[in-house]
Amino acid sequence: MTGASAPGPTPEELARGVLAGKSRPIGRAISEVERDSGDVPEILRRVFRETGRARIIGITGPPGAGKSTLVLRLAQAYRRQGRTVGVVAVDPSSPFTGGAILGDRIRMAEIYTDPGVFIRSMATRGTMGGLARATSDAVDILDAAGFQVILIETVGVGQDEVDVVRAADTTAVVLVPGLGDDIQAIKAGILEIADVFIVNKAEREGSDRAVSELSMMLDLSAHGSGSWRPPIVKTTAPSGAGVPEAVQALESHGDYLAQSAEGARRRAVRARSRLLALLEERFRRTIEARAPEPDGLEEAVRGVTARREDPYTAAGRLFDRLVRDAREGAARMTAESAS
Amino acid sequence: MTGASAPGPTPEELARGVLAGKSRPIGRAISEVERDSGDVPEILRRVFRETGRARIIGITGPPGAGKSTLVLRLAQAYRRQGRTVGVVAVDPSSPFTGGAILGDRIRMAEIYTDPGVFIRSMATRGTMGGLARATSDAVDILDAAGFQVILIETVGVGQDEVDVVRAADTTAVVLVPGLGDDIQAIKAGILEIADVFIVNKAEREGSDRAVSELSMMLDLSAHGSGSWRPPIVKTTAPSGAGVPEAVQALESHGDYLAQSAEGARRRAVRARSRLLALLEERFRRTIEARAPEPDGLEEAVRGVTARREDPYTAAGRLFDRLVRDAREGAARMTAESAS
Repeated sequence: MTGASAPGPTPEELARGVLAGKSRPIGRAISEVERDSGDVPEILRRVFRETGRARIIGITGPPGAGKSTLVLRLAQAYRRQGRTVGVVAVDPSSPFTGGAILGDRIRMAEIYTDPGVFIRSMATRGTMGGLARATSDAVDILDAAGFQVILIETVGVGQDEVDVVRAADTTAVVLVPGLGDDIQAIKAGILEIADVFIVNKAEREGSDRAVSELSMMLDLSAHGSGSWRPPIVKTTAPSGAGVPEAVQALESHGDYLAQSAEGARRRAVRARSRLLALLEERFRRTIEARAPEPDGLEEAVRGVTARREDPYTAAGRLFDRLVRDAREGAARMTAESAS
Repeated sequence: MTGASAPGPTPEELARGVLAGKSRPIGRAISEVERDSGDVPEILRRVFRETGRARIIGITGPPGAGKSTLVLRLAQAYRRQGRTVGVVAVDPSSPFTGGAILGDRIRMAEIYTDPGVFIRSMATRGTMGGLARATSDAVDILDAAGFQVILIETVGVGQDEVDVVRAADTTAVVLVPGLGDDIQAIKAGILEIADVFIVNKAEREGSDRAVSELSMMLDLSAHGSGSWRPPIVKTTAPSGAGVPEAVQALESHGDYLAQSAEGARRRAVRARSRLLALLEERFRRTIEARAPEPDGLEEAVRGVTARREDPYTAAGRLFDRLVRDAREGAARMTAESAS
């Protein structure tokens, strides 16, 4: 809030603060990557080499599955092991973003005052694509800052959320009993990304049935390519029951990643999708910037709308033109960054 | 099935068959646009100028809302008005794709034998992005073939489905009573695209409450930019109760589009998003084609994975290189299409 008017630190000071694990620079750095100005976030460039050490865990599932309280309990469990924890919440309904009921807030108070924990919720303004990018960047900041475990909380209901959770090494899908309809509603893509299933609110009727339904589903599907079969853990987040078992399941998966080729494969997949997203963003910006010009996007839109030209032909012509323009832009950028 | 081995018609014959509204060429043309070979579907280029006459209606909503039976009833109602109807089903759980229970199949038999109706379900293999593109193309084929009303059925649970439904002039969101949780689960994006709300399975308890909840929600939100307030209609699809009112609501919106600037605005927005999607697809193909080469995507992935280089710097360098390569490719394509 006050950061806007106060004179900011230099990029070098900011990077030093992040690498020293100081809260205020970390928060400021995440705000910078969140801003989505179209420029390269300078801070990321400065700290990126210091990333790659944290254990990154995604927690996803439908709204109402109790993900936030569970994330809190997991953070506490990791703290008891003496490990520092960063939390990135991408769920707009998350209590971390201010929607907490009183009980949650009291439980959270203890963790908010722990210097070994850093909690940040991401603003959901703008496109989901931008959010996935900013989340990856925020995770990198926390990683560079030395947090040993990073938990990403996201509501899982579609492709966009799958993209957000791609920043994680291990992904837990949280479900609740009576999820017959949920399983239908949750897209197959979400189930496929689960390394661990957590049946939360296990005190509810039907939790055993939920576990056996999930287990059957795993029997039927050739899950993943490797030899890992996602364990299913029951938890009751408010009381903390089952949380040690959940941590154990998450860490078993971490061991599996370290011992098999899967860990390296995932990090490469992640780097790849991140690069592709940045490239596409850059391409889109180039199109948008040139849209109003003669023979630009807007003119093509008018041609297609009036059925003078089919979209494929128009896109082909635009691509040719844009690529020429983009090349000039790229050359300019390269010249600028070299100076 | 047999089309693969039988000698196909020439592009000109195929286009003539589509424009004459003949079933077999229409089916073949849709298969062509569905194939997603990366080439321009020649058939679309040939018939595109004859599109823009159909009234295109999207029907979306959560799984289990009874969309397919409703679409069937709407098709019958439009047929009674003497209008021809095309149906494009993008819902993998749709009975149109073979999942029908017996009663549905009998009801469908009458419509399947009606030459004034063409029903096609889109294969959901491949990416959703590709599916949205193929759906737009299929709608164009049916439009060029002279179908006066085109109904697109799609399960609405995320951004991908919103993209699919963007091909429509008017979009109806179908919900069912007891949707308290549904409203939470259905993303705001889906609600915002509704021009008409249909509360289906209205015989169920709670249908009046569902209507009043939706109505309240509309009061609270500044819905859309124009003066259109989405009407809420109750239907019971199997018996057909409420279907005439649903058609009336859909057609009122059609009148609104024709009389206001909104219709033209939407067609432009659609052309725009279609062009952007095609441009991005082309860009992605260019990246993928060059990925294994020296200084290509794969090398950049290795650099980022090993933290030798941050993703922004790597993407910037790749963009520069790709744009140069793409330019050569585009020049080649232009030369080819000119020959």
